[in-house]
Amino acid sequence: MATANRNPEIRKDAVNNRLVILSPARSRRPSDFKSKFQAKSDSNPSSNAQPQCPFCAGNEHQCAPEIFRMPEDSSSDWKVRVIENLYPALSRDALVKSDNKEYCHSSGTSGEMSLGGFGFHDVIIESPVHSVHLPDLLTSGVAVVLLAYKKRIEQLSAIDSINYVQVFKNHGASAGASMSHSHSQILALPIIPSLASNRLSSMEEYHNQTGKCVLCNIHTDKLLIDESTHFISISPFASTFPFETWIVPRFHSSHYHELDENKAIDLGGLLKLTLQKLSIQLNDPPYNFMIHTSPLRVTSSELPYTHWYIQIVPQLSTIGGFEMGTGCYINPVFPEDAAKILRELEVV
Amino acid sequence: MATANRNPEIRKDAVNNRLVILSPARSRRPSDFKSKFQAKSDSNPSSNAQPQCPFCAGNEHQCAPEIFRMPEDSSSDWKVRVIENLYPALSRDALVKSDNKEYCHSSGTSGEMSLGGFGFHDVIIESPVHSVHLPDLLTSGVAVVLLAYKKRIEQLSAIDSINYVQVFKNHGASAGASMSHSHSQILALPIIPSLASNRLSSMEEYHNQTGKCVLCNIHTDKLLIDESTHFISISPFASTFPFETWIVPRFHSSHYHELDENKAIDLGGLLKLTLQKLSIQLNDPPYNFMIHTSPLRVTSSELPYTHWYIQIVPQLSTIGGFEMGTGCYINPVFPEDAAKILRELEVV
Ligand SMILES: Nc1ncnc2c1ncn2[C@@H]1O[C@H](COP(=O)(O)OP(=O)(O)O[C@H]2O[C@H](CO)[C@@H](O)[C@H](O)[C@H]2O)[C@@H](O)[C@H]1O
Ligand SMILES: Nc1ncnc2c1ncn2[C@@H]1O[C@H](COP(=O)(O)OP(=O)(O)O[C@H]2O[C@H](CO)[C@@H](O)[C@H](O)[C@H]2O)[C@@H](O)[C@H]1O
Repeated sequence: MATANRNPEIRKDAVNNRLVILSPARSRRPSDFKSKFQAKSDSNPSSNAQPQCPFCAGNEHQCAPEIFRMPEDSSSDWKVRVIENLYPALSRDALVKSDNKEYCHSSGTSGEMSLGGFGFHDVIIESPVHSVHLPDLLTSGVAVVLLAYKKRIEQLSAIDSINYVQVFKNHGASAGASMSHSHSQILALPIIPSLASNRLSSMEEYHNQTGKCVLCNIHTDKLLIDESTHFISISPFASTFPFETWIVPRFHSSHYHELDENKAIDLGGLLKLTLQKLSIQLNDPPYNFMIHTSPLRVTSSELPYTHWYIQIVPQLSTIGGFEMGTGCYINPVFPEDAAKILRELEVV
Repeated sequence: MATANRNPEIRKDAVNNRLVILSPARSRRPSDFKSKFQAKSDSNPSSNAQPQCPFCAGNEHQCAPEIFRMPEDSSSDWKVRVIENLYPALSRDALVKSDNKEYCHSSGTSGEMSLGGFGFHDVIIESPVHSVHLPDLLTSGVAVVLLAYKKRIEQLSAIDSINYVQVFKNHGASAGASMSHSHSQILALPIIPSLASNRLSSMEEYHNQTGKCVLCNIHTDKLLIDESTHFISISPFASTFPFETWIVPRFHSSHYHELDENKAIDLGGLLKLTLQKLSIQLNDPPYNFMIHTSPLRVTSSELPYTHWYIQIVPQLSTIGGFEMGTGCYINPVFPEDAAKILRELEVV
């Protein structure tokens, strides 16, 4: 890129209060290791149906129990299945309070805390066919996946001790995926994780200073990629990764699960377009996406400044000790450059 | 491990206030991707001297300028060289204030901030020989590396606008390394990164509640691995990664660069032993280590509760969207189990 000689810049965004070092010079450094990001093969080892894949239609019996399917009354012609994760990180049966007293110091005398690992861990199978990935679906098909997330979050939010729900997708081994069949996951937690509470504080601070919601007010001039009726896609001001992209509702909304069918179709179209653009530009990269919603039990005073969005992160490199140690990322691509490239890219 | 059926647990540590989900069941999940962690080949593509490697003795002219070497008066027989990074993330020449007014909103009206990317980015070459990695050095050789960090931090702390110094090491491609010759890096920053300021608040909170320094008071019963005269190695209570290990001074000290020669030898021995143990137990894994020190300009009231330590993280798997979205890690190995294994391991 012609901008490789631009000076480095340190930026902090207003949504997460997160620092990033934008440093184009870094993209020129050599490596004596073989590259491990062979995106195509990495993200899809075989595009043929795999008889051993539990997520393929016909292999439903190899899966943990189903929670629901879409359409609800479908039999072998399901579009999306929401199932329990067979190897859950949290357990539906655990107590919220740990009985392991030895390490249970939640009173604050030691600052350490230990809780029983209560929670729900589900898998959303996005297609019955092994070779069909999320952006290969029709817009209406992507909308069905988005509505499955909504429905499952609604169910989980009815459970008293669940306080936060994280929807996320891993695509490709370098993005952490262990299964290649198109899927995403939902983890429902008894606690509010640190990034969600940081975001809440950061959004509150902005609201206190300006009287506005930070995401309703986000500046899009050079950072806009695309827009639909109800959503925009942008490169965030302090992108932590090259080509990181956010999809943000243009209407104010605290919780993802407020999404209605009409808006789900609109969002489905923009999500499909965004994933297609990243795939074309970056050669089918491994990627993650995360739905950043608000804690389930926000108070009415928090509603004016909390606003959900989707973060999409192509995985193009491996982070190192600097990022692990500081929480500050080094990104060689300025978001205005990424936005321009993605904005001008035509998908045929 | 026999503990794979143990119930999951959510823990928070007192040093970083960081949540982790300990979930042994996760270690049993299958994958239809080929494993990309071939540790040995990944971490060391060739153990022979490489004529093209700029970090090898004899190729000094291929490197960015040298800052100093150890011993100081050595010529071709140097042990450690500290050089400028040829592709620095931050620039020694940039202004601290950005002149890019377009995005410069540091006044807090928008919550966004942009600064010129001022800072220092150095490389520490830990050995003149390509095939010699840090734990292959004699204890006294490891101590020379540790004293080179100290000396460089002392130089950087004399610069007014530098507020934090991060020392880190990437070993192996899956730990982010682009160069295979044994080295570490130092980044000196004008800002205090979020993980360092979080740690400071967390340590302060503990001190306010107990009157004690959290790391002086850390409980070691089941988590101790080894101890030397001045240091201990432990598995942290809320390990974010399997076999994550900390080396903590047994004496109270806010800043790494207070280390003297005598303690550097002692620390060199324990660091060497710890890296050897991880290498034996985990088959020469890629790893990172980070020195977590205090901001350079802490006030005297902060000194009683700030305490430096080294965090060592073997990279055995790839994180996914859950960790990226929440900041909360899923770790399949309980730290008490990791500590027991490493404690009982004999290095001959
Ligand atoms: N027959 C079956 N029935 C039901 N469920 C089945 C199943 N077979 C496998 N599964 C589950 O399917 C899921 C597939 O998920 P992904 O491929 O997105 O990544 P995974 O969760 O393994 O780990 C990645 O994501 C997590 C969370 O971000 C990280 O902790 C981790 O490091 C990273 O590799 C797994 O969680 C697995 O337990
Ligand atoms: N001739 C020469 N003279 C001087 N210096 C030279 C040089 N040739 C190369 N270098 C420098 O040597 C360093 C080697 O560092 P590492 O192998 O530890 O990882 P790197 O910094 O590339 O990136 C990893 O660490 C960083 C920081 O954690 C992450 O941002 C990144 O994603 C991850 O891959 C590079 O920074 C490079 O710029």
